[in-house]
Amino acid sequence: MSGGGDAPGAGAPGFLAVDSGGSGLRAVVGTVDRGVLARRESREPVRTGVRGIDPGHLMEQLVPMVRALTAESGTERLEVAVVGAAGLATLGDALRAELPAALARDLGVRTVALAADAVTAYAGALGPRPGAVVAAGTGLIAIGTDLTRWRRADGWGHLLGDCGSGAWIGQAGLEAALRAYDGRAGGSTRLLAAAEDQFGPMPELPGTLYPRPDRAAVLASFAPRVAGCAADDPVAAGILRTAARHMADSAVAVCPAEGEPRVALTGGLFKLGAPLLVPLEEELAMRLPHARRVPAEGDPLDGSVRIATELAAGTLTLPGDEKLLFTVSTKVD
Amino acid sequence: MSGGGDAPGAGAPGFLAVDSGGSGLRAVVGTVDRGVLARRESREPVRTGVRGIDPGHLMEQLVPMVRALTAESGTERLEVAVVGAAGLATLGDALRAELPAALARDLGVRTVALAADAVTAYAGALGPRPGAVVAAGTGLIAIGTDLTRWRRADGWGHLLGDCGSGAWIGQAGLEAALRAYDGRAGGSTRLLAAAEDQFGPMPELPGTLYPRPDRAAVLASFAPRVAGCAADDPVAAGILRTAARHMADSAVAVCPAEGEPRVALTGGLFKLGAPLLVPLEEELAMRLPHARRVPAEGDPLDGSVRIATELAAGTLTLPGDEKLLFTVSTKVD
Repeated sequence: MSGGGDAPGAGAPGFLAVDSGGSGLRAVVGTVDRGVLARRESREPVRTGVRGIDPGHLMEQLVPMVRALTAESGTERLEVAVVGAAGLATLGDALRAELPAALARDLGVRTVALAADAVTAYAGALGPRPGAVVAAGTGLIAIGTDLTRWRRADGWGHLLGDCGSGAWIGQAGLEAALRAYDGRAGGSTRLLAAAEDQFGPMPELPGTLYPRPDRAAVLASFAPRVAGCAADDPVAAGILRTAARHMADSAVAVCPAEGEPRVALTGGLFKLGAPLLVPLEEELAMRLPHARRVPAEGDPLDGSVRIATELAAGTLTLPGDEKLLFTVSTKVD
Repeated sequence: MSGGGDAPGAGAPGFLAVDSGGSGLRAVVGTVDRGVLARRESREPVRTGVRGIDPGHLMEQLVPMVRALTAESGTERLEVAVVGAAGLATLGDALRAELPAALARDLGVRTVALAADAVTAYAGALGPRPGAVVAAGTGLIAIGTDLTRWRRADGWGHLLGDCGSGAWIGQAGLEAALRAYDGRAGGSTRLLAAAEDQFGPMPELPGTLYPRPDRAAVLASFAPRVAGCAADDPVAAGILRTAARHMADSAVAVCPAEGEPRVALTGGLFKLGAPLLVPLEEELAMRLPHARRVPAEGDPLDGSVRIATELAAGTLTLPGDEKLLFTVSTKVD
């Protein structure tokens, strides 16, 4: 990095850190020396298509946000940008193909890192230290590193995996409700009552659910009811224990086997609290006895800031990966 | 029934029996005395929308088929029509609201019975006898009757149930494949090899599967590979045993508890053969010891013909039900 950072704002080369996810777009601008200087948020999620995240739609939202951020923070140049994006790892590569050039052209950014949301979740939770992170919301992915390479487990979506996720728990809860409705074994009348309370009469549920584009989110919306029933209902408690076991399966698959790795949990699903966390802590303690359980230090945007700060300082600790953390330098005239 | 049936075809009041499903539309015309006289088939499945099966699209295909059938068979009048349709029970009621009037108007049919495909499957498999039928293909439903009322279990679709169905088995197989891919517990390298053989590299599978409208069918297309691995692979064998247990759960929920009910299996999924049938027969023998296992006598179109024959003869044995077997008589001028 060239000098600067003494005069407040003026001339200091800065970084841009972005987190693009299902609930919208968040961006911050800062410098290595002075940290985050300004932040902006958009509630409009970036469109995704068959090629993954739409780079045009992302830039359309990002460019005016960044112009406002650089003006507000007095940052003249952005040397580095880190874009953490949901869907980067598995849903196509339009972003990888087009975003670095667009950021160079429109914002003069020389070095762009694209990070899967799992990587920004990891960086936010654990920073540049070896370990494993389970990130869980509607979906679920585990990611770990020994700082030489990344390992990923699950994150395959609600029809192929995301075992233990919000969609998984909600789906298992609705299956148990409908087993009770039908008089099949394995049902729960408590979950049936909760499902009828939330969705109305069961015969109408298929017609409500299947035509919706956000089916996984609808399933996940039932997960808090499953947690709410777990204290008195053995079927609900069993669903959460199985979810905890699936999460531990993923954590074990990605956690470094040697040393004293850290293990953290991040994402909205852990708001379910004790009914999920008690069996999960038991599973993790039993299956990863060498790992140290720590709270997540920050969220994916914090992770994006950490990666941007390291990149700008020329000290990136986390390993690069074509699919997960991909850095491109573009010559800017 | 008024006389006729002596002179070949001429003037004998006939019946129309229809089976509308995912693979197309089949229709036959016949008389009580002489049985089925002519049959036609269309490979174009009737469109379904948010209100269920589209009655307009059904009639568009059915009217020319029926005119050809009545001409071919020399049947002057159709007294009775039975339409067995997939999706009648759970996916809306446009058919119930509009089809009887349309059949009266366009084809002069006085009495129309609408039957859920589960009911025509039952009637085809067991005829007018008490028992339980498990109908399984991409989806799965069990239906049973003591001849006073119907009981139904499952048939909720691939996100809410259809436990043990083709989609369920295929999904469980792909989950096990991806567990092996990730290095998670519970994986099967045999199923991973089969999945890569069928679908190509696993990282591209989510991008292939999720945008498709026929996701359940794509999942079900992997079920034969799971059966193919079961002889040497304990994970695949375990999936099929669990599927068998789910099927038995549904059969037990609908089978009459008293008497000597019959139990039959029908639908394309049972072509998977021994890897599914051996554990299923064990489950059924253990959990329904009072029931007599019999082979299915016929398919859903045969069931539709049986119901039509009984209706035309005025001797319908199977119980009516607003959602499952619904008869309407219309005055025809």
